[in-house]
Amino acid sequence: MLALTHIQALKKIVGEANCYDDKAHLVAYCYDATKERYEPDAVVFPRDENDVSAILSYCNTHKIPVIPRGAGSGFTGGALPVNGGIVLAMERYFKNILEIDEKNLIARVQPGVVNKAFQEAVEKRGLFYPPDPASQEYSTIGGNVSENAGGMRAAKYGITKDYVMALRAVLPSGEIIRAGKKTIKDVAGFNVAGILIASEGSLAVITEITLKLIAKPKFSRSAMGVFPSIESAMNAVYKSMASGITPVAMEFLDNLSIRAVEERFHKGLPVDAGAILITQVDGDLEEQLAFQLEKLMEKFKENGCVDFKIAKDDLEAQNLWFARRNVSQSITIYGKKKLNEDITVPRSALPELLNAIASLSQKYDFKIPCFGHTGDGNVHVNVMVPDPSDKASLQKGYECIEEIFKVAIALEGTLSGEHGIGLSKAPFMRLAFSEAEMDLFARIKRAFDPNNILNPGKMGLVMGD
Amino acid sequence: MLALTHIQALKKIVGEANCYDDKAHLVAYCYDATKERYEPDAVVFPRDENDVSAILSYCNTHKIPVIPRGAGSGFTGGALPVNGGIVLAMERYFKNILEIDEKNLIARVQPGVVNKAFQEAVEKRGLFYPPDPASQEYSTIGGNVSENAGGMRAAKYGITKDYVMALRAVLPSGEIIRAGKKTIKDVAGFNVAGILIASEGSLAVITEITLKLIAKPKFSRSAMGVFPSIESAMNAVYKSMASGITPVAMEFLDNLSIRAVEERFHKGLPVDAGAILITQVDGDLEEQLAFQLEKLMEKFKENGCVDFKIAKDDLEAQNLWFARRNVSQSITIYGKKKLNEDITVPRSALPELLNAIASLSQKYDFKIPCFGHTGDGNVHVNVMVPDPSDKASLQKGYECIEEIFKVAIALEGTLSGEHGIGLSKAPFMRLAFSEAEMDLFARIKRAFDPNNILNPGKMGLVMGD
Repeated sequence: MLALTHIQALKKIVGEANCYDDKAHLVAYCYDATKERYEPDAVVFPRDENDVSAILSYCNTHKIPVIPRGAGSGFTGGALPVNGGIVLAMERYFKNILEIDEKNLIARVQPGVVNKAFQEAVEKRGLFYPPDPASQEYSTIGGNVSENAGGMRAAKYGITKDYVMALRAVLPSGEIIRAGKKTIKDVAGFNVAGILIASEGSLAVITEITLKLIAKPKFSRSAMGVFPSIESAMNAVYKSMASGITPVAMEFLDNLSIRAVEERFHKGLPVDAGAILITQVDGDLEEQLAFQLEKLMEKFKENGCVDFKIAKDDLEAQNLWFARRNVSQSITIYGKKKLNEDITVPRSALPELLNAIASLSQKYDFKIPCFGHTGDGNVHVNVMVPDPSDKASLQKGYECIEEIFKVAIALEGTLSGEHGIGLSKAPFMRLAFSEAEMDLFARIKRAFDPNNILNPGKMGLVMGD
Repeated sequence: MLALTHIQALKKIVGEANCYDDKAHLVAYCYDATKERYEPDAVVFPRDENDVSAILSYCNTHKIPVIPRGAGSGFTGGALPVNGGIVLAMERYFKNILEIDEKNLIARVQPGVVNKAFQEAVEKRGLFYPPDPASQEYSTIGGNVSENAGGMRAAKYGITKDYVMALRAVLPSGEIIRAGKKTIKDVAGFNVAGILIASEGSLAVITEITLKLIAKPKFSRSAMGVFPSIESAMNAVYKSMASGITPVAMEFLDNLSIRAVEERFHKGLPVDAGAILITQVDGDLEEQLAFQLEKLMEKFKENGCVDFKIAKDDLEAQNLWFARRNVSQSITIYGKKKLNEDITVPRSALPELLNAIASLSQKYDFKIPCFGHTGDGNVHVNVMVPDPSDKASLQKGYECIEEIFKVAIALEGTLSGEHGIGLSKAPFMRLAFSEAEMDLFARIKRAFDPNNILNPGKMGLVMGD
């Protein structure tokens, strides 16, 4: 619990109406998408960058933890106040699109702007902001930057970091810094913007984000391929892309995932297929779309595709994408607790990864439906624990996850493609990083945040305090 | 001068044949493209990563400066041993392409691989590595990463940082770290690879680089537009690109630059033009090229282009590019000393930037030919000092440069688009960065290099020692 003097000091900075320590607020800001709960000592809504600066300066002096929070939709506990302190809620005042600069294809936004709202605003001007995390309806650009969010379009268009040109941020000392420029090229000084991206709110509080935009491609078209086995589908993925075709998206569902959606929604999906691939191409010319679809069909068929269907119109496209969009909620038929991980491997390792997961499914006797963004090697792996109140079973689930991480790392993959480390994956950091690498992370953290007040206890960092 | 015991210790690590302190070697490694000279105390050629580790560990213990060096082709003194110490020359043993992974469109190289040799190797396989600094014939990938090199293709394809997926590097402590992954998505841990890029050899010694490749576009075509004024050309640049066309390159020459090339080579260039734009488009379909060229012609003409010429074949394309490729050496007709800077602004600020430079040219009475990569807002500005032995005139040249920097920064531009800061631009860092930002740079430096042994005295860092 924070001393009353601290609460009063914070209220003095932001005003009575923007600082709360009543139970209702503490409960409302104690969770994220992990559904774990850690109550903060106070919830503070800064009104502007000067408020952020004053709050951080105060908390730094008094060593009060500060946990920046966007929409609280993260999957790894990044916004949870595990050590108490204040939740710095950016959602109330930092939700403006400050500029859409059509001359330079650039936008400036505040961190609390919702991804989807931003996409819609730029698309109205014929522009395009590609990063589209599954949480796009509610997650904020600030959260997207802090976790380096990905999405379905990453195969062609990259991820959040590929669109961040510059940031304004406040250091724990209260100092305001700018990092990066509104220019494509900028090599002056260390790449501070680059290290703030994906730093999970642990280095500085981002107050403004300058994003690159691109022109919106005029046309897009979707297609689906049905494969007899998951291996044939995974081969089709990497061989298509190695042939030089770069679809916007290349998503897959395995057999368990297909069956789950079909059981819930009865859409006539191919329930005996080993896997389906759903893909989309785009471009400014019809010829480009036809060229890409033809190449994809060729590569899919060379790799065993038994049915290749191109959507004729928007409605058919929506139908093709229905399964992918509804798979996450559907697989809950396999167990009450879903241990979901977003590991990523080089595309050519996808067949081996999925084979290994099939073996682990047998070894541990869990259903493990898999789906996701195979175009960039990113697989959402879901270990379904039928009854999580059975502690032994849940423990076995975590052991299975750990083995999956080990397989991914052995295949030169990563613990997390887009969800971040936060709390949930912190115990596994030492599978992926050496002592020297973990020590370097801690030193970087200290360079920004010597008192360890910003989002402490995350990412498996050992701060020696 | 290094004590004999240090030379002996270094020889023990790398062998007699890979460590030199004779005058010939010290002179051979005392310069870069700035033509400034600082002799090191020794030149050491590490044979492998373990040598690098042992050398750094030794030098860290004994606080001996270590200056990593690729081809020594940098424009800002990044590889100059201003405080003595050893030059760590990567050119002898670190020149292998380790892997071209066609399945995942990835390559692994050692830092001493020459950019152009690497490009040719991947193009033989139908793949493409776009970053093409003007130094590509001799500069190394390690140097390109350390300075975040750009080039002509940046407008469409981005710069070096957009292709670096992972690095291996050795910290001053001798510890070997990996940063990044062979995956498109990776959000585990801080983005250490991101901060090593453009760090000018001051944080760690890079020993291996994993690069993203793309499929080589099948077709490309070049065109040239002639403009009555520089302002009309600059308007054409940003308005073309805002219309959604992304040419591979969009290069310009101003009137002084055109005249200089014509005077030397007599190619029939339009010597009365205010500026010319030379551009290139590419794609996998002829229709795409035609579409892009048509749009470019339309936008050029809307902005006053009086002549638009599309190259019919490779020979014609080479002729169009001749002026751009030979401009740098040609402008020396305007003065013995060229103070050349590579400032970058948002594209829409190009007209204002070039107007301001014209005024400064009058104010200081220097010819200032400008050319460069306007597609990404990057202009090579050359203040030509007729007689650099006239100290007053040279001083006036530097004052003019400082004013140009101030204009660029006021237009939200940067001190350097691609050359780096090194020694040459270090005095100007405080024009661009606040006290808080400079302090943060120093703390980041310390997190990697607490004894300040790696390339000390660069980037304007004040290390307090």
